[in-house]
Amino acid sequence: MGIKVGLLGLGTVGAGAVKILLDPADRHPLLSQIAIAKIGVRQLDKPRPVNFPAEVLTTDLESLVTDPEIAIVVEVMGGLEPARSLILKAIHHGKHVVTANKAVIARYGDEIFTAANEAGVYVLLEAAVGGGIPVIQPLKQALGVNRIQAVTGIINGTTNYILTRMQQEGGDFEPILAEAQRLGYAEADPAADVDGLDAADKIAILASLAFGGRIKLSEVYSEGIRQVTAADMAYASRLGFVIKLLAIARRNTHPDSEEPLDELQLRVHPTLVPLAHPLAAVNDVYNAILVEGDPIGQVMFFGPGAGEGPTASAVVSDILNIAATLVSGQGSEITAKTANPLLACTHQHYCKISPMADIVSRYYLRLLAEDRPGVIGKLGLCFGDHAVSLESIVQIGLRDNYAEIVIVSHEVKEAHFQTALDDLRGFPEIHSVASVLRVL
Amino acid sequence: MGIKVGLLGLGTVGAGAVKILLDPADRHPLLSQIAIAKIGVRQLDKPRPVNFPAEVLTTDLESLVTDPEIAIVVEVMGGLEPARSLILKAIHHGKHVVTANKAVIARYGDEIFTAANEAGVYVLLEAAVGGGIPVIQPLKQALGVNRIQAVTGIINGTTNYILTRMQQEGGDFEPILAEAQRLGYAEADPAADVDGLDAADKIAILASLAFGGRIKLSEVYSEGIRQVTAADMAYASRLGFVIKLLAIARRNTHPDSEEPLDELQLRVHPTLVPLAHPLAAVNDVYNAILVEGDPIGQVMFFGPGAGEGPTASAVVSDILNIAATLVSGQGSEITAKTANPLLACTHQHYCKISPMADIVSRYYLRLLAEDRPGVIGKLGLCFGDHAVSLESIVQIGLRDNYAEIVIVSHEVKEAHFQTALDDLRGFPEIHSVASVLRVL
Repeated sequence: MGIKVGLLGLGTVGAGAVKILLDPADRHPLLSQIAIAKIGVRQLDKPRPVNFPAEVLTTDLESLVTDPEIAIVVEVMGGLEPARSLILKAIHHGKHVVTANKAVIARYGDEIFTAANEAGVYVLLEAAVGGGIPVIQPLKQALGVNRIQAVTGIINGTTNYILTRMQQEGGDFEPILAEAQRLGYAEADPAADVDGLDAADKIAILASLAFGGRIKLSEVYSEGIRQVTAADMAYASRLGFVIKLLAIARRNTHPDSEEPLDELQLRVHPTLVPLAHPLAAVNDVYNAILVEGDPIGQVMFFGPGAGEGPTASAVVSDILNIAATLVSGQGSEITAKTANPLLACTHQHYCKISPMADIVSRYYLRLLAEDRPGVIGKLGLCFGDHAVSLESIVQIGLRDNYAEIVIVSHEVKEAHFQTALDDLRGFPEIHSVASVLRVL
Repeated sequence: MGIKVGLLGLGTVGAGAVKILLDPADRHPLLSQIAIAKIGVRQLDKPRPVNFPAEVLTTDLESLVTDPEIAIVVEVMGGLEPARSLILKAIHHGKHVVTANKAVIARYGDEIFTAANEAGVYVLLEAAVGGGIPVIQPLKQALGVNRIQAVTGIINGTTNYILTRMQQEGGDFEPILAEAQRLGYAEADPAADVDGLDAADKIAILASLAFGGRIKLSEVYSEGIRQVTAADMAYASRLGFVIKLLAIARRNTHPDSEEPLDELQLRVHPTLVPLAHPLAAVNDVYNAILVEGDPIGQVMFFGPGAGEGPTASAVVSDILNIAATLVSGQGSEITAKTANPLLACTHQHYCKISPMADIVSRYYLRLLAEDRPGVIGKLGLCFGDHAVSLESIVQIGLRDNYAEIVIVSHEVKEAHFQTALDDLRGFPEIHSVASVLRVL
């Protein structure tokens, strides 16, 4: 009786999922029909944070993903291999798959979904983005009737925690990263988080769902937060902004007609966000995803972006979704014709991604220059020569005997801004370009 | 070919839905398989904001809901009757139903869902709460694996618009209501909005989904915003709060063990919300719904709570959801055994609602009293005698020659607070109780 699931991995997320599955009272009644058949682990004799019948533990992951009794394989082991191979093998053996593995989906999603469609199984991944926040399902279902214009997210909790503390305490990046590591909010090797790579994986997944095409991860531009300084935080604040690591997927529009074009921007970078923007108030380890579409306008999903409970909630909700199709007579023998098109992922083409040189954005620039008359005028002329229109150019004060100048541009083409910047760097009056950030 | 829908009503929401259905490019591909068979209206020869084949218009609503060709009836006419009867007739004729009608569902949901389960059809209502914000589907699906502790929402755009303007301009209720009426943000008869009745309908629906039981609408406590003054706004702000009309559904917990009890609080009232709370920044006509559950923690859904585009997006997403089950081989002949348990609504029992006297809350109280020594002491003693512990009691200043005193309590039982208040009203030193508000 019941629907049998096999878990690959019993770390934080796996243990959280087991806790929910073994304690179904006062949750959705369908949960009581779901049974854990096997849990694949590396080591049998380790203390576990949950109690379950010892006989379900196995180190034989291959036999788990091929077990004829198991209908749903839940991959919560993380990492690229053997996760990818096990997911593919499970699919080939007719198992539905639930995964929390953004890295595998962002890199091998095409291979995995092609295999899933051939085998007639579902691959669900709510936990891969935004922890517990329901965002994958709404993008596939409730928001699918819209023409999506943009998805903009704070989707990395570690960097949001660091930036929030930098903002609140006026501290610099390195010491706050070190403390985040001590507190367990950042990994010993923080690169995937602080260099924006984790956010890049996630925005690739969101963009694929929002815009109905496949995404080459290598085409996602990604810039981390290491170069954000306490000084920039303070100036941003004076100008009415906070600095957030945003992941942005946006459909380009025709510069004159505003008609949507068949081309996306996909980028992760620290960004000055106006204080009144809904994402500006998303602090600490919280995540939020803002979706803009026609005709819905703006909707935002906010919640805990990580952690055992939230992520397990997302994993088990995917299991429940598949279980619901199984008990309702879909499911076990679905084909391309009978798959539920709101659960399956059938797009084949690759989205066209525009190069960063072509994006249009506002920019924030901080310079150190000789403190002498005429410098600001020269800067203004140089930007003007490159078709970069400025909103403000202000000498903030002196730093190390140099004049510290902060410039905010209007919306301009990145290529124009960068060539102006290259020119500036050659000016004898310019001591250094302290920072360049994009402005939402 | 395709799935045929019939619309009841072609007002704002109906017209918005037709626009989406007739223009499926760049939306979910399944939309192109959905065809509008009939649109039921009161008058044939009225100018319409959308173009569609004239022959689909009909004034014969009965024949629309019994048309054997139509698989999905979309009720967007509003009002209680004939909406309720037409929905029931559609169900009895085997049609799936999509409705945006919170008033009908909040009052006749039991009758409608019982009929739907017997007939083996789905009744979906994403647009009934929160306009375009996906919240009904996430509550049924992604959040269903959680034990929900509370759903707290700003779910009436009109009152949120009025309160936001009162807060930002320091204005009083009446003139801002009048302007909201001129601008079309409030109805000529504003009672349903400003007295909290619309929010009561919606929280009844959300509670039913979140807690898996039926709700008697008459048991929802509802208090509007007419008595909120500019003075209270200003004092709330000084104390670190904003005033919002909140709709709250919360499962009671045991006072000692914190174990969840089988009893809900269901209430709509103006509430002092701490500035750092995620709902505090939800302004203007925006809505937001905060869901708290175990193990997910807090997630919030934010977006436009009304308007043609957003509401139409929600209506069409429900149509899409049903269409997806129809093309995937569920659907046309579903029974209690084969209905998708995440789309159907099968709970039978009524939730137990605790009386307001039993709820536990913090309170804000503003009094005018004789300006003489000992009054504050007497007030403090009186609250103490009724087991009401106070957080602060402050004489703010003088108003009309009376001392204006603002009191904020700790969490206390409403009955205790009210009896203390009854006592106070009898004190000769007390001129009047200017306002009593609950604090989140």
